[in-house]
Amino acid sequence: MCRWMAWLGQPVLIEELLFDSPHGIVDQSLHSRMGAETTNGDGFGMGWYGGGDGPAVYHSVAPAWGDANLRELAAHVESPLFLAHVRAAIGSPVQQTNCHPFRRDNWLFLHNGYIAEFAKLRRDLMLALDPELFPEIHGSTDTEVVFHLALTHGLEQDPIGALERTLGVIEAVADSHGVQGAVQGTFGVSDGESLWAVRYATIDRPRTLFASAEVEAIQHLYPENERFQRATPDDRLIVSEPFSDLPGVWHEIAESTAVTVRRGGVLEQQPFRPAAA
Amino acid sequence: MCRWMAWLGQPVLIEELLFDSPHGIVDQSLHSRMGAETTNGDGFGMGWYGGGDGPAVYHSVAPAWGDANLRELAAHVESPLFLAHVRAAIGSPVQQTNCHPFRRDNWLFLHNGYIAEFAKLRRDLMLALDPELFPEIHGSTDTEVVFHLALTHGLEQDPIGALERTLGVIEAVADSHGVQGAVQGTFGVSDGESLWAVRYATIDRPRTLFASAEVEAIQHLYPENERFQRATPDDRLIVSEPFSDLPGVWHEIAESTAVTVRRGGVLEQQPFRPAAA
Amino acid sequence: MCRWMAWLGQPVLIEELLFDSPHGIVDQSLHSRMGAETTNGDGFGMGWYGGGDGPAVYHSVAPAWGDANLRELAAHVESPLFLAHVRAAIGSPVQQTNCHPFRRDNWLFLHNGYIAEFAKLRRDLMLALDPELFPEIHGSTDTEVVFHLALTHGLEQDPIGALERTLGVIEAVADSHGVQGAVQGTFGVSDGESLWAVRYATIDRPRTLFASAEVEAIQHLYPENERFQRATPDDRLIVSEPFSDLPGVWHEIAESTAVTVRRGGVLEQQPFRPAAA
Amino acid sequence: MCRWMAWLGQPVLIEELLFDSPHGIVDQSLHSRMGAETTNGDGFGMGWYGGGDGPAVYHSVAPAWGDANLRELAAHVESPLFLAHVRAAIGSPVQQTNCHPFRRDNWLFLHNGYIAEFAKLRRDLMLALDPELFPEIHGSTDTEVVFHLALTHGLEQDPIGALERTLGVIEAVADSHGVQGAVQGTFGVSDGESLWAVRYATIDRPRTLFASAEVEAIQHLYPENERFQRATPDDRLIVSEPFSDLPGVWHEIAESTAVTVRRGGVLEQQPFRPAAA
Repeated sequence: MCRWMAWLGQPVLIEELLFDSPHGIVDQSLHSRMGAETTNGDGFGMGWYGGGDGPAVYHSVAPAWGDANLRELAAHVESPLFLAHVRAAIGSPVQQTNCHPFRRDNWLFLHNGYIAEFAKLRRDLMLALDPELFPEIHGSTDTEVVFHLALTHGLEQDPIGALERTLGVIEAVADSHGVQGAVQGTFGVSDGESLWAVRYATIDRPRTLFASAEVEAIQHLYPENERFQRATPDDRLIVSEPFSDLPGVWHEIAESTAVTVRRGGVLEQQPFRPAAA
Repeated sequence: MCRWMAWLGQPVLIEELLFDSPHGIVDQSLHSRMGAETTNGDGFGMGWYGGGDGPAVYHSVAPAWGDANLRELAAHVESPLFLAHVRAAIGSPVQQTNCHPFRRDNWLFLHNGYIAEFAKLRRDLMLALDPELFPEIHGSTDTEVVFHLALTHGLEQDPIGALERTLGVIEAVADSHGVQGAVQGTFGVSDGESLWAVRYATIDRPRTLFASAEVEAIQHLYPENERFQRATPDDRLIVSEPFSDLPGVWHEIAESTAVTVRRGGVLEQQPFRPAAA
Repeated sequence: MCRWMAWLGQPVLIEELLFDSPHGIVDQSLHSRMGAETTNGDGFGMGWYGGGDGPAVYHSVAPAWGDANLRELAAHVESPLFLAHVRAAIGSPVQQTNCHPFRRDNWLFLHNGYIAEFAKLRRDLMLALDPELFPEIHGSTDTEVVFHLALTHGLEQDPIGALERTLGVIEAVADSHGVQGAVQGTFGVSDGESLWAVRYATIDRPRTLFASAEVEAIQHLYPENERFQRATPDDRLIVSEPFSDLPGVWHEIAESTAVTVRRGGVLEQQPFRPAAA
Repeated sequence: MCRWMAWLGQPVLIEELLFDSPHGIVDQSLHSRMGAETTNGDGFGMGWYGGGDGPAVYHSVAPAWGDANLRELAAHVESPLFLAHVRAAIGSPVQQTNCHPFRRDNWLFLHNGYIAEFAKLRRDLMLALDPELFPEIHGSTDTEVVFHLALTHGLEQDPIGALERTLGVIEAVADSHGVQGAVQGTFGVSDGESLWAVRYATIDRPRTLFASAEVEAIQHLYPENERFQRATPDDRLIVSEPFSDLPGVWHEIAESTAVTVRRGGVLEQQPFRPAAA
């Protein structure tokens, strides 16, 4: 049910992380190890900050592993901050408007997981949107509605607080419909300056989430690794599942935790708890 | 802003009407003469009654003139009742879930025209849906919402009455938002037995709509025309614009008129007036 | 590297074999057990005999598991003879012209496997085509060239003999380029009346191939199975891998064997040996 | 039968020329005035020099006017040298491998027009390719073969001379098959440093081709035009048809002429004549 990654650091060619990592996101589209599904072949999406105004978005219904345009873009676009997502659809159609990340102004948003029995909750959740945002829903995924709920609840002022309020609303709506286990998953957000990520599930274990360790520590562990030697203290990755099996390179984010990554490689964690509506 | 056609009559290979008519719907996708746009290249859709349960639907984002699969289907599927639509998008994305005809159970629905300032009205119109139908909206067109409003208002019991109530609701919602000229266009509906079509605009001239004349009259006019000689009294076509320039073959449907076509070539007309909400 | 199936028997709704079999071809697109790859998500193709002239072909670049149009067609098209194919591309692009089955006049052709180092051999193999057939190559797969070589060598008069001559030519061309293990795979052919299939590899074990057992024997083994009780003695399936684990239902085709299936459930086997050029 | 453009000059956001020009290439995809067809909706292609190694290529089967990814790329990619192409297919399939520009190493190549009766000539023309290049033909257009013939004849050393030899070969092959009017069209080429363009037809008038005038002259003519005031003496455009009706801004390239554009806004013209084989 999807895999995603986010990079904040020195400007890199996107292919370095999408294609040239041992178990990068494109490999995960075909051979995910920790996901609910092995295959994430129901479309690809990527958003990056760089040239032009605001983030660019590329959404494709082709599986990531076979998309010629994706390979081209990845090989020619450099960015200091980008997010990518491979999708395993669970019900909603494979169409560009259902590909992550979703965007509004400077903001990008993506998700791995689901809102339980979304069809049952969809109407009430869409009614809970700021009416101005209602016509901005172009696809049919749960994630797009979650994003616009978060915008409704102040994502642009306080990303983590807004997500706590948003998931609180979703859990309340689910309760009122007798739906169990409303929220499952991990969420990624950026405004072009920082990254935020959340790992949370109403019940059960949430989907996996990892952050790369401090560059200095990684370099110390793997002094012969050329690639790691090219890294700078600014570089951080947040991923659904690690790009490699190397011990010490990846730290699992605990359940019910929110992460903030700021320029300079700063990574902060805090407890995450949906706010009562 | 789209062209459509509907056939009710003897079973025919679909290509006969899509490709082998002088100015059939595929030709209209590239060279519409009466439409708001010359080019209707933003996807194709077709629904037909025949094998299997209920109508089949084929939706494609490729322009009709270049879609290899459409050519195959048209050359190999025979049907006594089918509807086809070429789209010129006005705002909403080119995706299969935005292609007409829309379907529910045995019912097919298509539209040429628009709901004015739909983004502004969308929330209120979706709130007016039977809540059970809310999660059935998979795309982002005005037409899909109109169809589900019509289902909400009894399309399956009384198609024309339901459309009068539906357009009444839309006009009332538009009024409440200060939107002028709420409804523009023509609508086509089928349940697999009969066809219904409506031509209506709140203000100004509605999009064009034509019905084929009685087969006997056509045969009398064109005794040498082999194709017309193959026609049977059962055959009727409803089209956005005529497939040929032959005088006497096509009758324009008057504004504010609803048409019913029943098996046996029966065509009835009646005034159409949106019902006050 | 692809999975395929072919049906010859009573007319059936295509979905019965594509979707409603426990491990049918669409399930194999996502979870192949015996294929070189688990995922066969690089396009789908299907050819069927039924309405209209000659076979119809549907080719899609969407993975079979998520293709809404495929589900529609499968649920509404009935055929007594059809072939379907899920593709795992190995180098050539994901495009409709690379989807199997390939067609010429009444003939359909599909393949699981490869011609080794095809890029190196492609020019010589295309030069070996009947020059009239050269412009009929629209894609870039090895299979399309093999098919046209087989047509060059008399496929329409003697399918198995033509394939023996064709593979003989390919092995000779490969030898002249120092390419080892020229041919790998299974091939399926139909003219709308009969089915032919070949299992062969120049070296190593060829890809798997199975035929369904005689219906009477299957019914005897599984007297409670409703579906098998609906089968008629006419029904035969040829498949890359079995649709179920039921003992006695599937017979593996031996290596270097050609199979002929004729109406009436007749299945004949014979040794297959490429003919020296 | 296609429209194209090429930019060499100061780095610009691609959208400025694709979307924000009054009659830019995307407008031409829907409303070409001088092309053989009004609609060029059978795919889009673009190649640009910038980040990463060599040119990037984006090929899409969606019509340019409705391609959301194209709009994104155009709004976020800046380049000092790029080529774009909208396609009206005449026989060959709408697929990414048939979209221009074609690429090899640093070279991009595109074309408006046709090789007459290409199916008849295709085999001989492909035999005339450097055998090393034969497997590089991935699509089925005449243009891709012309490009590889030009590479065979020294495009990388002497672009215009190579094109003269290439068209000479094509005309000779056509003669040997009794095909009249072998070559029709305009060709555009770049190596990332310079641009070359050719306007030529064996018989009849070739497709149109225009170059933008010297920036200083344009600025003198339109002192109030803000956009022109932002232009630098480096800027040159080569286009199938002008982006505007402004007198003095566009110069028609004469028939049988080759154009070279070098950095610094240098534009040179020379007679173009196919070389006898």
